[in-house]
Amino acid sequence: MQTVSIDLGHRRYPIQIGSGLIDQRGLLSQHVRDRAMVVTNSTIAPLYLDQTLAALGNTPCSSVILPDGESFKNLDELTRIFTALLSENFDRSCTLIALGGGVVGDMTGYAAASYQRGVDFIQLPTTLLAQVDSSVGGKTGVNHALGKNMIGAFHQPVAVIADMDTLATLDNRELRAGLAEVIKYGFIIDADFFSWLEDNMDALLARDVVATATAVRRSCEIKARVVEADEREHGRRALLNLGHTFGHAIEAAMGYGNWLHGEAVGAGIAMALDTSARLGLIDERTQERGLRLIERCGLPTAPPATMTADTFLQYMARDKKVSGGNIRLILLDGIGQSHVSANYNHDALHATLAHFTA
Amino acid sequence: MQTVSIDLGHRRYPIQIGSGLIDQRGLLSQHVRDRAMVVTNSTIAPLYLDQTLAALGNTPCSSVILPDGESFKNLDELTRIFTALLSENFDRSCTLIALGGGVVGDMTGYAAASYQRGVDFIQLPTTLLAQVDSSVGGKTGVNHALGKNMIGAFHQPVAVIADMDTLATLDNRELRAGLAEVIKYGFIIDADFFSWLEDNMDALLARDVVATATAVRRSCEIKARVVEADEREHGRRALLNLGHTFGHAIEAAMGYGNWLHGEAVGAGIAMALDTSARLGLIDERTQERGLRLIERCGLPTAPPATMTADTFLQYMARDKKVSGGNIRLILLDGIGQSHVSANYNHDALHATLAHFTA
Repeated sequence: MQTVSIDLGHRRYPIQIGSGLIDQRGLLSQHVRDRAMVVTNSTIAPLYLDQTLAALGNTPCSSVILPDGESFKNLDELTRIFTALLSENFDRSCTLIALGGGVVGDMTGYAAASYQRGVDFIQLPTTLLAQVDSSVGGKTGVNHALGKNMIGAFHQPVAVIADMDTLATLDNRELRAGLAEVIKYGFIIDADFFSWLEDNMDALLARDVVATATAVRRSCEIKARVVEADEREHGRRALLNLGHTFGHAIEAAMGYGNWLHGEAVGAGIAMALDTSARLGLIDERTQERGLRLIERCGLPTAPPATMTADTFLQYMARDKKVSGGNIRLILLDGIGQSHVSANYNHDALHATLAHFTA
Repeated sequence: MQTVSIDLGHRRYPIQIGSGLIDQRGLLSQHVRDRAMVVTNSTIAPLYLDQTLAALGNTPCSSVILPDGESFKNLDELTRIFTALLSENFDRSCTLIALGGGVVGDMTGYAAASYQRGVDFIQLPTTLLAQVDSSVGGKTGVNHALGKNMIGAFHQPVAVIADMDTLATLDNRELRAGLAEVIKYGFIIDADFFSWLEDNMDALLARDVVATATAVRRSCEIKARVVEADEREHGRRALLNLGHTFGHAIEAAMGYGNWLHGEAVGAGIAMALDTSARLGLIDERTQERGLRLIERCGLPTAPPATMTADTFLQYMARDKKVSGGNIRLILLDGIGQSHVSANYNHDALHATLAHFTA
């Protein structure tokens, strides 16, 4: 087991990465104060719920099973968690456990932030995307029909436990979607990691356990350092949203769940590469190199054909990164170098949208 | 205008109390960063919305009107606020303004805590209850069918502006309900204020402006000092819940809105007096003195006849003050003296429930 620590000053918690962690008695329950409520979904429950409850041993626990999918990440489904907690008289000293992917993690975290104005929660991510990104850093929330993750809270977990074994049951599409967030770290901040990913992409796609654990650890390290420097996203943390402003527009416009988050991010990074190239920030070779890695993940490098420039602008105008009416973008200055800007030449953005929407 | 400051270390904000404040140009807009969204309800909108929008002058602003009443304080109605914000592309730099009573304030505050993971908000309370209690201290949230205020956040406003003139349109029942929270401060912490209330109750019921402003200022001062010492209610802040554990059970069991919050608190304080007397903490004279002041406010001193002891226990077991399964109560040691306890003789609680539910 490897541990990455995340230290936020007011709060410090471990990200534990390894094999067989779910089954390890005591590992989970040491983070539970009193009673535990495991929140999972209908796909994950048959695979890992019994194991998780067994590993909790004598810790009093219950569970609630949500329907699976991004389209259920809303306030209505969130209410199911509150109803389960209240029906069983869970009080403020309880701990929620998010067993599943990014949707389960985001919803459980927001439920924990909101239940009785705040209780503890543990992330037990079972998808690559959740292990490398969404379970770390305390962003929680649900979608609104008019925008992704528009309702939520910053609420840090007390621990993240990433069991590599759970990736064995991940389908290939979900695996590739997770890789979108992995390569993102290379793009924005770490050229060495980007090169390592170029060298190890075949191993990652073949689910090599050592390569995967390395990618997860490095991703968590990068995210931990970025979040430590800027928990509330007043600055640097926004870099983690490379490709997400375009991506969120795709997800919302296509109807949540039709494009996986990582697929939309893949296309979004391709679009960010295009805008960066048009602005003269990167040369054609760098753009090509970036596109090649996205393609090797098996991810789309363009949005769906039905998207128009107007649709993009409409959703992008609602993005949380909008500030004073300007659409802020994460732009690349090279592989491993990026910055946030609202003061770029907006013609480049319009040219990108025109290019990708025919 | 009088100003009470509340200093939470990480955050300091003013509570401004006086007449004609809504109309005062610049008073409100100085606290707005960018764009403002006024949230109000269908009763308050015809009375004060135009004035409020006019006072905002050149500040870009919109409004959303919720249905009036505690029965609408839920996640479904909260979504209306998010929809209004997203439809008009409000970004993270916006400011929500809660124009109304406790329900509007709690919902607007929670919407501000949750929209894009947190934006600013201003409290503009128009009921006595909101001016003396709910608008101060940062508790925000909505009800769940299974319990009051069970979903929410601690989120402090950037300012509270209590315009005494708005109390002119308050009906008598709402005025009396507000007095429940005023006398609460005397009961728990301030014997001198309790005596002042005994001397000035007729003036308060007659809506004497000077007496009312004094009561509002003193209530806000007491609340500010308690919240400063314990923002997240790990200890002393729980004193502010005198009568509320019983009261919340009444409100939830009767259906939200049938008993006003203050009415339920009045009956709840009467019940807390009874339990305190049974435990030998206060003598009969003190209990009588307490009951008399509740009665003079025109508030009930007993729960509705349909409540059973089992109903009370069922709802009280879900109260946020429950800790490790024990029902914590605020008990009185005298007028102006109180403490929180889960370690009292529970027979006294059961005797109180038996006494009040026949």
